[in-house]
Amino acid sequence: MNNPKKIAGEKAASFIKDGMTVGLGTGSTAFFAIHKIGARVKEEGLKLKCIATSIESENLAKELNIPIFGFEEIKEIDITIDGADEVDKNFNLIKGGGGALLREKIIAYITKHYIIIVDETKHVESLGKFHLPVEVVQFGWQRTFDHLQNLGCEIKLREKNKEVFITDNGNYILDCNFKKIENPESLQTTIHNIPGVVECGLFINRTNTLIIGKPSGEIEVLENKG
Amino acid sequence: MNNPKKIAGEKAASFIKDGMTVGLGTGSTAFFAIHKIGARVKEEGLKLKCIATSIESENLAKELNIPIFGFEEIKEIDITIDGADEVDKNFNLIKGGGGALLREKIIAYITKHYIIIVDETKHVESLGKFHLPVEVVQFGWQRTFDHLQNLGCEIKLREKNKEVFITDNGNYILDCNFKKIENPESLQTTIHNIPGVVECGLFINRTNTLIIGKPSGEIEVLENKG
Repeated sequence: MNNPKKIAGEKAASFIKDGMTVGLGTGSTAFFAIHKIGARVKEEGLKLKCIATSIESENLAKELNIPIFGFEEIKEIDITIDGADEVDKNFNLIKGGGGALLREKIIAYITKHYIIIVDETKHVESLGKFHLPVEVVQFGWQRTFDHLQNLGCEIKLREKNKEVFITDNGNYILDCNFKKIENPESLQTTIHNIPGVVECGLFINRTNTLIIGKPSGEIEVLENKG
Repeated sequence: MNNPKKIAGEKAASFIKDGMTVGLGTGSTAFFAIHKIGARVKEEGLKLKCIATSIESENLAKELNIPIFGFEEIKEIDITIDGADEVDKNFNLIKGGGGALLREKIIAYITKHYIIIVDETKHVESLGKFHLPVEVVQFGWQRTFDHLQNLGCEIKLREKNKEVFITDNGNYILDCNFKKIENPESLQTTIHNIPGVVECGLFINRTNTLIIGKPSGEIEVLENKG
């Protein structure tokens, strides 16, 4: 039995070429991609400039001697490899289960070739079974909650260790259960127009390549031509 | 010579009725409205529940014995009276010159009857001569700056006393000079979809009544039937 996350992550690492600027994602699938990139840096002597979507991935990269830079130095990224909580048939994503959606989104929006790696359980017909994370300013958050609830979802204020979870930017996360999201693009626009919303976990029209690992060992590589 | 701000502000205060929940705006025109509301509370014994768009207005209201409440207690507002930096012919606004745009917007979005008071210099054909304030997260703000600049505006990072201005929510303000904004609604959507943007100073389809004070002493009251 193959590890679908491992084969998808390692396949993605094969897209990296010498001299590239690379965005390193976060999570259990990106973990394997970063390890493989580290191995290629060591064995093939690849010269890369990398930036990570989380402190966790940054630390892992440093351990593997992958050179890490900040946003002051990186304006554009050649390839980013990241996981997702859900991917639909149009390559749209829900991300942010880990709570770093802003950082992940900033990186996605300056990336030329955005590669998403998942195991096949994350590849769905429509988004929404996974609860959509929405990052909101603390000030007046109760009213932001009301506006989101009026869109027809059930909402939980995210907690961690029985305390309200606070993002790196000092905000709250509202996890919104929409069950089924019919039109992710229009939902994104609606959510972003609500005062107090900083970011939401919908990543629309970003993914260029989707790599799906399967327990059989098969790897499906889908190119987004849309 | 009449003070156009004073006559517009006082006219707006006449819309307030006993028992209402009222949003109190900020700035030189709202100042006169708050004073008039204070006088009516004192003279007519109006019972009101008020919430302010800034600490400054909250303090003024308290001095005038206007009862002030927080967002925990106020879910909906009957009337809000606030100023604007620009109002176009479709009643769309640019606000946030004072830097409290998030708080102003939260209040606008829970208000049933939103009254904007200006002197006639603020009433324009198209928005954009006034620089549009955009509140952005500090993390990765340079990239948010790039995305905004790609929309074709000149941008200044707002400073105060020669230091970078920080909003109540710990964010920066980028003042964006678009010169002329052809389609405010579509611009708002585009700006809100940029990662790192918390809020922007465009207030679209919010204004119900526009009160314009003129130096002649004339007051123009325009109802938005759109």
